[in-house]
Amino acid sequence: MPSYEAPNKDTAFILHELLKVQDEKIKGFDELTPDFTSAVLEEAGKIARDVLQPINQSGDQEGCHLENGIIRTPKGFKEAFDQYRAGGWNGLDLDPEYGGQGMPYTLHTAVAEIFSSANMAFTMYPGLTHGAISAIYVHGTDDQKAKWLPKMIDLEWTGTMNLTEPHCGTDLGLMRTKAEPQDDGSFKISGQKIFISAGDHDLSDNVIHLVLAKIPGGPDGIKGVSLFIVPKFLVDDDGKVGTSNGVSVGSIEEKMGIHGNSTCVMNYDGATGYLLGEEHKGMRAMFTMMNEARLGVGMQGLAQAEAAYQNAVAYAKDRLQGRDVTGTKNPDGPADPLIVHPDIRRMLMNQKSFVEGARAFILWGATMLDRGHVGGDKDAMGIISLLTPVIKGFLTDVGFDMTVQAQQVYGGHGYIEEWGMSQFTRDARIAMIYEGANGVQALDLVGRKMAQDGGKHVMAFFAMIKDFIAENKDNEAISADFLEPLKEASKELQAVMMYFMQEGMKNPNAALAGSTDALHMFGHTCLGLMWAQMAKAAQEALDAGTDDPEFYKNKLITGRYYMTRVLPATKMHGVRAVAGADAIMGLEPEAF
Amino acid sequence: MPSYEAPNKDTAFILHELLKVQDEKIKGFDELTPDFTSAVLEEAGKIARDVLQPINQSGDQEGCHLENGIIRTPKGFKEAFDQYRAGGWNGLDLDPEYGGQGMPYTLHTAVAEIFSSANMAFTMYPGLTHGAISAIYVHGTDDQKAKWLPKMIDLEWTGTMNLTEPHCGTDLGLMRTKAEPQDDGSFKISGQKIFISAGDHDLSDNVIHLVLAKIPGGPDGIKGVSLFIVPKFLVDDDGKVGTSNGVSVGSIEEKMGIHGNSTCVMNYDGATGYLLGEEHKGMRAMFTMMNEARLGVGMQGLAQAEAAYQNAVAYAKDRLQGRDVTGTKNPDGPADPLIVHPDIRRMLMNQKSFVEGARAFILWGATMLDRGHVGGDKDAMGIISLLTPVIKGFLTDVGFDMTVQAQQVYGGHGYIEEWGMSQFTRDARIAMIYEGANGVQALDLVGRKMAQDGGKHVMAFFAMIKDFIAENKDNEAISADFLEPLKEASKELQAVMMYFMQEGMKNPNAALAGSTDALHMFGHTCLGLMWAQMAKAAQEALDAGTDDPEFYKNKLITGRYYMTRVLPATKMHGVRAVAGADAIMGLEPEAF
Repeated sequence: MPSYEAPNKDTAFILHELLKVQDEKIKGFDELTPDFTSAVLEEAGKIARDVLQPINQSGDQEGCHLENGIIRTPKGFKEAFDQYRAGGWNGLDLDPEYGGQGMPYTLHTAVAEIFSSANMAFTMYPGLTHGAISAIYVHGTDDQKAKWLPKMIDLEWTGTMNLTEPHCGTDLGLMRTKAEPQDDGSFKISGQKIFISAGDHDLSDNVIHLVLAKIPGGPDGIKGVSLFIVPKFLVDDDGKVGTSNGVSVGSIEEKMGIHGNSTCVMNYDGATGYLLGEEHKGMRAMFTMMNEARLGVGMQGLAQAEAAYQNAVAYAKDRLQGRDVTGTKNPDGPADPLIVHPDIRRMLMNQKSFVEGARAFILWGATMLDRGHVGGDKDAMGIISLLTPVIKGFLTDVGFDMTVQAQQVYGGHGYIEEWGMSQFTRDARIAMIYEGANGVQALDLVGRKMAQDGGKHVMAFFAMIKDFIAENKDNEAISADFLEPLKEASKELQAVMMYFMQEGMKNPNAALAGSTDALHMFGHTCLGLMWAQMAKAAQEALDAGTDDPEFYKNKLITGRYYMTRVLPATKMHGVRAVAGADAIMGLEPEAF
Repeated sequence: MPSYEAPNKDTAFILHELLKVQDEKIKGFDELTPDFTSAVLEEAGKIARDVLQPINQSGDQEGCHLENGIIRTPKGFKEAFDQYRAGGWNGLDLDPEYGGQGMPYTLHTAVAEIFSSANMAFTMYPGLTHGAISAIYVHGTDDQKAKWLPKMIDLEWTGTMNLTEPHCGTDLGLMRTKAEPQDDGSFKISGQKIFISAGDHDLSDNVIHLVLAKIPGGPDGIKGVSLFIVPKFLVDDDGKVGTSNGVSVGSIEEKMGIHGNSTCVMNYDGATGYLLGEEHKGMRAMFTMMNEARLGVGMQGLAQAEAAYQNAVAYAKDRLQGRDVTGTKNPDGPADPLIVHPDIRRMLMNQKSFVEGARAFILWGATMLDRGHVGGDKDAMGIISLLTPVIKGFLTDVGFDMTVQAQQVYGGHGYIEEWGMSQFTRDARIAMIYEGANGVQALDLVGRKMAQDGGKHVMAFFAMIKDFIAENKDNEAISADFLEPLKEASKELQAVMMYFMQEGMKNPNAALAGSTDALHMFGHTCLGLMWAQMAKAAQEALDAGTDDPEFYKNKLITGRYYMTRVLPATKMHGVRAVAGADAIMGLEPEAF
């Protein structure tokens, strides 16, 4: 069975030496001292290791089952959920007025990675609830907030997001679910929703569904979609759970992975719903949460890669097979450990340099969300809005690849479910799809975010890289190994952006044809920036005479690997991104 | 449920217009007229579509079960096996002296792709038997051949290959299974083998295991390994199946995919075995089959990509979602089909240009095996020996990626088992691992095949490309679009080879660190060569006034896509391949 230890030393390095969160002048950040965050991460690590990870594989094998209309989660999920709930983890970054602890979202993100690595399927139950809470918190009336939030933050009730229908996923304008207005101001919701994660289960006393639906007579398409709160059980004015609403589980989906999470077909049959936010502005309400939700999915890509990586390392050190061609390393044993072999190292270094870079990228992104939401920093909000599709698309694509490579380290054992490596791959696969398939992320980047506010944020992003390079050009520890490749990647990416801007207007397909490659170039450039910054921080620690020089030296070595061996992917993506529409659109549909 | 149609038009184009098999002067090839091959492919396509494909998904869902020591294959497998057997498909390319039909291996390969696309798990039962037959055919005595081959070719009995043990997969020198010589010339085999595909089942009357084991007192390590024929049931001199031998199924593995194939732990407890080939020369006997077996696994990468591609195309044409940004294509419908979107096209074109290129590559490889084995052409044998790790490693790595992209076209439905796309991904995953994990293929390429016979074959390979470019330099239809990028890729690959030769001696890890990247460069260059040759053939058909110009025009368009958008991967791999050992080996094992 796989194991997992939270990478707390690395997270602490990123929080306190790279991002220096303790110095941020935003509400809540003053509490993020190294001592405090280390206590929180340590506690989260214990729950992850001792409570969530032990039921990850069994949850995958057992799955969720629909029995007489009730969904049973796998053995141990309820007990784990109660422990998670008792620890107050769900409210870590939420408003104390409703029972939260008011910590920065950045800390929540660091902790969420840990739980997600240990048990992605489990962590989705509170994760979806967290998203629903944010929607109600931002768009709800005071009464709605008072009614729903305390019990959701407490996890007495959980939440879901209901967008997809059988005939529409990306194109929600095709939605058919209806919301008929009632005399008392409520609505009767009718229709079918599919792929509803955590749609129903036996973990909480109520499930609060956020449901997109159309009010008859409203505008056509996406502009006529509204958002509703639809509880599984109606709740009276005193907050007591009453009779069941017209909500039922149609079926439970058999999926490739995340078997421990109940993915439901939900049927609404005249269920009572309450409008959340304005009529016909449901998509806007959804989109205010998108940055957060997509950052959370990007984090899942990292989280599965991290968990898979840890186990690949353990196997590579333990499994004896073949000899080091440069000289035996284990003369007393029948063979050397796998880790002596360069191609095994290649896979492990790919994983290590990815997860450490991705962790920095996501936590940096989380600080920008905090700066924007709490600190009112519009520039930070602009940058994170630009980078959100990159975090979601790039980190889940590469995160999945990394789980495949971790599985590969195991050879034949990687294919056997007993060893647990297949599960990381199967679980990670969904993150490329949900919360907007990665092709939609690429479209969002190229078709919307790049040009947002007149291209201001993309220019700010490049200026940030340029400034960092200029400020550190005399820093010999990083100039040749980090700044030069970063500069090159950034230049290549800018050339692609320029091409898109020139071509985009006259031939939009030319930009769209290169969108995924541009997204990947963007992602590599961001990780290159993270590594350059981490290298700088590591060198500073070494120069200051740290008492743990190995940790910082290893950071530099790992970073150099990324810059030398991984970042050159931009060369391939750069050529592909500007190859134009003709190559891609040349065939008539019937020629496929 | 997914569907499948054999791509017979494409296969016929490759066989008759690209490879011109009908003109080969090797025994058996004179029968390969277009009429004949088309009749064979059509019949194979019918069985694939009507018999094997319909039980692919149900076989995945049901899996194999061990009941009271007997393995039950999924519902319908036995009936399908009987039909497959009755059609004589297993003996298509085998010696008529033992009941085969004596066709070229090339035709067998074309047909095997079809069956494997329709049902990979099923096709492995005859596939493993085919491998075991080859071993006995090449290394068996006349008596052994007479005793075992006719019933194995007829599929009355099936075969297996037993190499891996719990503590050794790649490093077979660590093997512990013993073979004690008996007075009658037979051996008593004792030990445990794992990951035995088709190890036991209810499809045939006997299972003939080929087992690697050590004769006590022989040389240490890999040089003391011998190969044995160990039947599940002993067979008397009249060929009658008698009492059971000391062979039993320890357990059946729960795997990520190929659930319809029984992957067994096999226990040998003093089982009677018969030496096949020479004592202590078991690995040599195994390796004579490796080219064929690895080509077969590379074919599986293609086969799963093809099946997944066909379904992704159908979905992309059928599913209405969003509008073409350049103008509505389906004004009467609520949305345009997915196929109008450039990023969907990108994924479909990746798949299409891969499967068509890969099919040409594999069938070309198969003709070289025929030229070598039947025609005695040592140069062809040298080239296919060089390219075998490329066919296996590259086509299974990329084939898997293509199944992931096909799954991605389906959005959320791709993750739901009911739609069948997850199965292609899960089934394709094993091909990167078995028959030598792909890292071992890269090692084989760089550490052995490149330098084989003084580098003669690698030079011949580059000369072949150079000659083709020189011969066609005035062919305007292909010179700029095909020959130029091929030339560039070939040059980049040669530079890497040169670096490896220079560094390899003084710093072997530098070459090994780049081995997988070199393998992928090799693969892309081969597919680039295939596309250039196919483009030439297509243009010739157009010039000759074909009555199906669309087919050939589409070949050119698809080929241009490969050259423009896919082949530039060599730019990334080229940088990585020569990045040296330091970046990859810099960390101490404890730093991971």
